[in-house]
Amino acid sequence: MPKATLDEKTYNSSAERFIERPFVRDTIMALIVINAVVLGVLTYSEQLPAWLVAALTFIDMAVTFIFVAEIVLKLYVYRLQFFKLGWNWFDFMVVGVSVIPGGSTFNVLRALRVLRLLRLLHFIPTMKRITEALLTALPGMGAILAILGLVFYVSVVMATYLFSGSQNTENFSTLAASALTMFEVLTMEGWNGHMRDLMEEYPWAWMFFIPFILFTVWAILNLFTAVIVDSLQDSALEKMLDAEEKISDELEEQETHEVIRHRELMALISELRAEVQELKQSRSGPG
Amino acid sequence: MPKATLDEKTYNSSAERFIERPFVRDTIMALIVINAVVLGVLTYSEQLPAWLVAALTFIDMAVTFIFVAEIVLKLYVYRLQFFKLGWNWFDFMVVGVSVIPGGSTFNVLRALRVLRLLRLLHFIPTMKRITEALLTALPGMGAILAILGLVFYVSVVMATYLFSGSQNTENFSTLAASALTMFEVLTMEGWNGHMRDLMEEYPWAWMFFIPFILFTVWAILNLFTAVIVDSLQDSALEKMLDAEEKISDELEEQETHEVIRHRELMALISELRAEVQELKQSRSGPG
Amino acid sequence: MPKATLDEKTYNSSAERFIERPFVRDTIMALIVINAVVLGVLTYSEQLPAWLVAALTFIDMAVTFIFVAEIVLKLYVYRLQFFKLGWNWFDFMVVGVSVIPGGSTFNVLRALRVLRLLRLLHFIPTMKRITEALLTALPGMGAILAILGLVFYVSVVMATYLFSGSQNTENFSTLAASALTMFEVLTMEGWNGHMRDLMEEYPWAWMFFIPFILFTVWAILNLFTAVIVDSLQDSALEKMLDAEEKISDELEEQETHEVIRHRELMALISELRAEVQELKQSRSGPG
Amino acid sequence: MPKATLDEKTYNSSAERFIERPFVRDTIMALIVINAVVLGVLTYSEQLPAWLVAALTFIDMAVTFIFVAEIVLKLYVYRLQFFKLGWNWFDFMVVGVSVIPGGSTFNVLRALRVLRLLRLLHFIPTMKRITEALLTALPGMGAILAILGLVFYVSVVMATYLFSGSQNTENFSTLAASALTMFEVLTMEGWNGHMRDLMEEYPWAWMFFIPFILFTVWAILNLFTAVIVDSLQDSALEKMLDAEEKISDELEEQETHEVIRHRELMALISELRAEVQELKQSRSGPG
Repeated sequence: MPKATLDEKTYNSSAERFIERPFVRDTIMALIVINAVVLGVLTYSEQLPAWLVAALTFIDMAVTFIFVAEIVLKLYVYRLQFFKLGWNWFDFMVVGVSVIPGGSTFNVLRALRVLRLLRLLHFIPTMKRITEALLTALPGMGAILAILGLVFYVSVVMATYLFSGSQNTENFSTLAASALTMFEVLTMEGWNGHMRDLMEEYPWAWMFFIPFILFTVWAILNLFTAVIVDSLQDSALEKMLDAEEKISDELEEQETHEVIRHRELMALISELRAEVQELKQSRSGPG
Repeated sequence: MPKATLDEKTYNSSAERFIERPFVRDTIMALIVINAVVLGVLTYSEQLPAWLVAALTFIDMAVTFIFVAEIVLKLYVYRLQFFKLGWNWFDFMVVGVSVIPGGSTFNVLRALRVLRLLRLLHFIPTMKRITEALLTALPGMGAILAILGLVFYVSVVMATYLFSGSQNTENFSTLAASALTMFEVLTMEGWNGHMRDLMEEYPWAWMFFIPFILFTVWAILNLFTAVIVDSLQDSALEKMLDAEEKISDELEEQETHEVIRHRELMALISELRAEVQELKQSRSGPG
Repeated sequence: MPKATLDEKTYNSSAERFIERPFVRDTIMALIVINAVVLGVLTYSEQLPAWLVAALTFIDMAVTFIFVAEIVLKLYVYRLQFFKLGWNWFDFMVVGVSVIPGGSTFNVLRALRVLRLLRLLHFIPTMKRITEALLTALPGMGAILAILGLVFYVSVVMATYLFSGSQNTENFSTLAASALTMFEVLTMEGWNGHMRDLMEEYPWAWMFFIPFILFTVWAILNLFTAVIVDSLQDSALEKMLDAEEKISDELEEQETHEVIRHRELMALISELRAEVQELKQSRSGPG
Repeated sequence: MPKATLDEKTYNSSAERFIERPFVRDTIMALIVINAVVLGVLTYSEQLPAWLVAALTFIDMAVTFIFVAEIVLKLYVYRLQFFKLGWNWFDFMVVGVSVIPGGSTFNVLRALRVLRLLRLLHFIPTMKRITEALLTALPGMGAILAILGLVFYVSVVMATYLFSGSQNTENFSTLAASALTMFEVLTMEGWNGHMRDLMEEYPWAWMFFIPFILFTVWAILNLFTAVIVDSLQDSALEKMLDAEEKISDELEEQETHEVIRHRELMALISELRAEVQELKQSRSGPG
């Protein structure tokens, strides 16, 4: 049995070497790009000759197969460690959705397969770095997003209680309809249309919409500010505070050296003085 | 009578201990969240079975009762001190609106009850901190908001004088209608529709709208800038100026130490010199 | 004649003292606010009782008279110096427009009178400071605004050549019509409607609109950045560079002091050495 | 033959002197401005008298001829070096498009001629500097733009698979139609109309649009931040880090000087001590 474990270990590490080889990574990256083109061209499948559609579909299936094989290999190599990395979950899901058997040709599953092109986000190092930087910026906005979310929920529930009985519009008839409508108001797209529809029935509707718009602008303004300030602090300001810290440290060190040099001088002069006093003593002694 | 006062005092402070206990705060926070769900679900009251609506309404009433009790207790404990804190005013009003008796089921009072969910804003510490930070940022924008407000008022009055006689549109017929329409123009939503409606009658209407749009963009741009600069100054730049101040102080202190050390050295050498001179004198004396 | 000149001089300076007295300035400020309310209420003149309209109109006329008197007085006091200050030009024009005789009641001249409320901008010190700060920020944006203006003009002329023959829309029929339409596109309000109208006739119209939109977003993004960076540099960063300059100066000064102290020490020790040598000499002399 | 080469060389350099002379540059700049006015006025050619149209057309042709001559001269002077400068490519293309023979009067070629007014961008130094600064800022946004581009492409392909079979709208029928529609959604103009059209058929369509909107806002927010941070770092922060570097260097230099001074003092005192010891020795020797 030890042999079997050893064998397996060897196999695993050679598989690991294979999967992490630059050539393999580059090949997969190329396959993602080819797949992007293929999936784009396949949207015209009805106008294309049948043989081309067949060929492209075959390429798509082949790429899917290679992606599945890659993930199975990685699962074999890393075992449960595989799921410790967020990007692996991402790959697992966007590739996994391709192998769910579906009935019709043009359907939601086919569309979801397109998501696998987003794997490029972590295959190109610059993109990976930026994407991760952008994700780590999210907690910094957390509290403002939570406030925005709470105010949004309160507004949606209020809007439903206030306007669900409207004869003019179905936009607030249920909680879900209100949520959709208020999201539109949040993006300021067509918000005045919704308000004016309601104002024919409820002339005070502006008292609901205008504070909501002002709050939204104010919250988004602060969200922007938080992101910019955070980003500046993480990059430039951190560096500058470090430089100032370094100057402070240098000053302290200089002071320490100064004190040591001062002691040296004092000691030397004291010794000198002792000798002069000795000289004096010896002089006054015999004199 | 002194006993009564004493009793009352004891009662008050035990009530205070109760009201400020973490468990009590957490319970109220949980009740706000439960109430949020209940009020959301109750928007579907017409599709839900009668017993569920009754149960949810009972929960809502119970929560209202607890909130009222909490505020009454706080009023009893803190007396008029209660109203010194802005958040207490907020609680008093959003809870108070729930106990106003109202006739119909689906009405404005019911909708206003939803506002009490916003109490979460000061029960979660992070949210409270951000909300207060955002409110303290408002005076910084004050002057720009005042200018924006003045220009807005002037535009609304001018628009009413200019366009209230329009045959095409009722959007500027009164001061209130103009205010609403100009607010839409301020958010840039549908501003061109309003302008084109008027230009059929008043071909020069663009001379009113385009400067207003340009001014608005310019004012909002400056509002953004003010908020970002203020926020940067309050956080990072303040810290950096402190660090520089600290370096300056360290330098001054170093200079002071240097002067003290210098005096020590000078004094020591002077003493030494005095001794050498004494030696010389004593030598030349007998010599 | 010298007496007359003297009299006049005395009169002038007492008039100047009068016009610059805080009480007079506050009164005028109050009159602007009253006038703002009056002009607002007068928009409802058709619904108000005749006596109230007459009273308000009288107040408006009285305020106008006081404003005219104020400017005439200022002109008398400062003579041509009056026109050296931008705000005086502003007052001269917004008040001047009120005294142009006009025929009908509800007309453009009446509307232009509302502009005089903007005088508040330089009567309230905070507002004045901000307004002037915002105006001095304009040249900083100058070059970007010039580029935006040039690209806008080129786009308007091109749009007219390309689309003035359109059967679907009159929006590009003349240079002026194109300018208005492209300004709407600049604010992104309804830009897609204009593009889709044209694309039925000119399927390549997106090749004109999409680069224009992208350029606009890019230019506005850079405008924002320029304003924020300028504003930061003017306020905080300038202060920090000063603090660093100060540290540098302190360091240099410290070095100078250090050199002086070093020389003092060296001189003292040299003197001491001379005395010791003298002692040695005197000893070896007689020895 | 050497003479011919020499002649040519002389001619070249005198041509170069001519083309780079301020007067020539100013003339061309003036011609661009005149051309801008002429091309603007010519959009009204149908309302203008025939002789004026003829005159303006002549001016336009003359300016075109001068521009062509300028470029031919530059090509003669700089040969292939001409194409090393991006602005020369720009001139070559915007002027070149004017001399392509075209059939009708009001056509695309005529419109493209207007592009030559953009040559002003590199004739006015301030504009040139800003334009180049803005172009060099593009790579800094590169990674975010690439992510935005990838997500946009994935969304367009998905939208086509999901919604191309829609009975209500043709906006997603092909990849190109989807791209146009999704670009509109990206600018948030009319995005809710597109979504609501689809939701009648596909009630889950909001699950596609709302994440796309949120991603877009988030990406644009980060794009803004990147540009502002980059711009701040390039200008102010770089300067401040330099100032801090300078302080650090000054401190190091000061320390070095301090060490040298310390050695001088120690050496001097040591010499003094040696002399005192000599004195003692000489004293104890004979004594």
